[in-house]
Amino acid sequence: MGKDDNFSEWYNDIVEKANLSDKRYPIKGMNVWTPYGWKIMRYVDDLIRKELDATGHDEVCFPLMIPETEFKKEKEHIKGFDSEVYWVTHAGLNELDVRLVIRPTSETAMYPMFSLWVRSHTDLPLKIYQLVNTFRYETKQTRSFIRVREIHFFESHTCHATEKDAQEQVEEDLVILEKIMERLCIPYSLMVRTEWDKFPGAYYTVGLDTAMPNGRMLQIGSIHHYRTNFSIPYNITYEDTDGEHKNVHQTTYGMSERLVGAMIGVHGDDKGLILPPPVAPVQVVIIPILSKGNADAVIKKAAAIERTLKDSGIRAKLDLRDERPGSKFFDWEIKGVPLRLEIGMRDIDNNVVTFARRDSGEKGTISSDDIVPGVEMILELIRKNMYDKAWKIQKENVVSVDSVKDLPERTLRFGWCGSEECGHRFEDENDLKLLGTPYIKEGFEGKCIVCGRHTDKVAYASRSM
Amino acid sequence: MGKDDNFSEWYNDIVEKANLSDKRYPIKGMNVWTPYGWKIMRYVDDLIRKELDATGHDEVCFPLMIPETEFKKEKEHIKGFDSEVYWVTHAGLNELDVRLVIRPTSETAMYPMFSLWVRSHTDLPLKIYQLVNTFRYETKQTRSFIRVREIHFFESHTCHATEKDAQEQVEEDLVILEKIMERLCIPYSLMVRTEWDKFPGAYYTVGLDTAMPNGRMLQIGSIHHYRTNFSIPYNITYEDTDGEHKNVHQTTYGMSERLVGAMIGVHGDDKGLILPPPVAPVQVVIIPILSKGNADAVIKKAAAIERTLKDSGIRAKLDLRDERPGSKFFDWEIKGVPLRLEIGMRDIDNNVVTFARRDSGEKGTISSDDIVPGVEMILELIRKNMYDKAWKIQKENVVSVDSVKDLPERTLRFGWCGSEECGHRFEDENDLKLLGTPYIKEGFEGKCIVCGRHTDKVAYASRSM
Repeated sequence: MGKDDNFSEWYNDIVEKANLSDKRYPIKGMNVWTPYGWKIMRYVDDLIRKELDATGHDEVCFPLMIPETEFKKEKEHIKGFDSEVYWVTHAGLNELDVRLVIRPTSETAMYPMFSLWVRSHTDLPLKIYQLVNTFRYETKQTRSFIRVREIHFFESHTCHATEKDAQEQVEEDLVILEKIMERLCIPYSLMVRTEWDKFPGAYYTVGLDTAMPNGRMLQIGSIHHYRTNFSIPYNITYEDTDGEHKNVHQTTYGMSERLVGAMIGVHGDDKGLILPPPVAPVQVVIIPILSKGNADAVIKKAAAIERTLKDSGIRAKLDLRDERPGSKFFDWEIKGVPLRLEIGMRDIDNNVVTFARRDSGEKGTISSDDIVPGVEMILELIRKNMYDKAWKIQKENVVSVDSVKDLPERTLRFGWCGSEECGHRFEDENDLKLLGTPYIKEGFEGKCIVCGRHTDKVAYASRSM
Repeated sequence: MGKDDNFSEWYNDIVEKANLSDKRYPIKGMNVWTPYGWKIMRYVDDLIRKELDATGHDEVCFPLMIPETEFKKEKEHIKGFDSEVYWVTHAGLNELDVRLVIRPTSETAMYPMFSLWVRSHTDLPLKIYQLVNTFRYETKQTRSFIRVREIHFFESHTCHATEKDAQEQVEEDLVILEKIMERLCIPYSLMVRTEWDKFPGAYYTVGLDTAMPNGRMLQIGSIHHYRTNFSIPYNITYEDTDGEHKNVHQTTYGMSERLVGAMIGVHGDDKGLILPPPVAPVQVVIIPILSKGNADAVIKKAAAIERTLKDSGIRAKLDLRDERPGSKFFDWEIKGVPLRLEIGMRDIDNNVVTFARRDSGEKGTISSDDIVPGVEMILELIRKNMYDKAWKIQKENVVSVDSVKDLPERTLRFGWCGSEECGHRFEDENDLKLLGTPYIKEGFEGKCIVCGRHTDKVAYASRSM
């Protein structure tokens, strides 16, 4: 498995070897979440729920199917999704009068209801979210977690009295983002997407991108400000304090199972997966090192340590399989378990436990008396190190360029006059994707990389995954 | 709201007033889970997860769509579902070569994969489950949680080496059932369904039924033993210790959002919902009783009690709305909050908190010093009382009859010779549904209610919801 030689092959290999997903399901791009992969996804979901609940979002669950009549109310939106939705046309033995779309995203399912739910300014802000699967008829080559046809994701949808309130929601979304990413150890950049790449129907879109080891950027989520673009066709209005009826301003926010794909790509190495401790199904694996005549004592001690760790809420697992320790190390390294503990007779005699970190390979010992705080501290060090290291790579991946000659396979930063013409030309002639302009403004003085006109705008581009 | 006068109207009314579900979504029978309703469902899901995980089931997530070619492999199965599945025929702008079924249940999605996953006797038992939504094109009148077209449910699927091992799984399922029902306070009967009513493709089906206040039985779930009926067409085989390849024996187990419908129907009263404490989003509501000059002290004390309860993991909510206490009582009674605490100046002076139980109306006081154990004890008493009371009603609803004259609107118990002919005649002539024969055998000597022949078999019937 060579991560640096052939990222794409390495990625597919690791998904299979760690048994995260089974892509042999008889529909291409609709994969089976295996127990190990699904556990990771569920820990990610739990983090998302925690942050959204803490910021006053209510979890709901909307129907999967959307009548064609509702789906077509916002013109840009339907244009954007026309070629990639699944259609239910028959039910039982009948042909349906109105065809049903399988949700590609839930604006058009939710907004007819929002128009019933929102009546007065006292109903605002309305902040809801759901964790569901969504469906896109992907025609490009599929890849587990990264490009699939059934996508696990969360989507939050909010309604506000004013454009400014909606803008403040975008800012809150960024705080939520940071809290989630700290736990997943995934760095990100915030790019305002180009007009031709924004979400269909949005006023603007902020793309959340993470650099993969092959230099390409993976969009892991997005935040959209809709202004009143949807509330007008869906008639979502509120009565203001002055008795006037106004359209609400809306935002949405979503991230998908690509978070799992990003964790695999950002953290993994040639030995396998490396999981951030907050979402590792097994955080600590305990391997007894047996030698003749001491097996019972060692297993007893190892079991006691497993019990102690579990009682403190640490996801520990004692591996008692009848295999050599080296073979067990190998298996758990593939699975990405962040911390390995080894216990042999010598450790018992010294009242310590030997540890090995999956992220750095560092080894050492922890006093048996301090096993819980010791393990907690090392798991936190691992998390911090994984996040710092990933941010370093994310930043180093950016290269400032001022000409289109010999562009490296990295994230490119350059002057752009902002015209669609130059933007399209840049993308087409270099086979690159404009990621957009930084959401957090960056000072710049220079020339447009295409037309050469002076500009104070900076843009980013990369090949996309 | 008259539960006893018109159950059906009362039920619909309570779902709307407690805001559990919004049925104004533009597809009939596909309802929106509102925040309150979805929270209850999620607590139910958590209970289910806990019990399934504890018995060695692994959670997975299989794709929603099933190719028609896979769906049609088991003949009885497709016959049973032909008239009630949704078909995806188009994707994007293309007509699909192979039509896709939206899962009505996941046998035909999972079993092609099981045939890859199971190789050897060491892979057995395979025990997995998922919590997903499933779809049935229901043509009868729909009703929130009870008869809908998008159904939230769990389904567990197991593979075993022998028929006996599969039978032991059915027994384990019944233990899991009891643990879940104790928490939801829902009584149930176990009926082996008739041959013409069993799950399409099953060897036998055990229906789990709960009596509704109108005397009708609501099926809340089912357990199926498949023998090798699916493993033969789906080619799920294992190599036994003797090197021989054999088909696995399978079981499934499922319960749906009808659990929420059953809780509403079994426990609610004319004031509204009564929620079992383990799944109540708000377990304890705290109402400050303010009078002139003491508002600050009372609110401070009430907030301190809320904090203390929350810190102990009790879902407490302090209601500080600017409304009269009586109006707050009314609102929380509709929502079914199991325990109300009232705090006024007199309570503070006496160092107590006044409580009112939602289930019995009983009032009393708890010492402020024992607030956590006091509240925990009362919540447990409420749970126990709700479960006992519900079981009493479930049992009293059964009436033994020996003639079809003047049948009461209850669950009927009677002799049945076991012939399909008598069974069908009984159902058709009395407009009743045969629930089946007891899974736990009951001694009986008497006559078949239809043909009069002597029989030692007893059967049950009722109108169905």
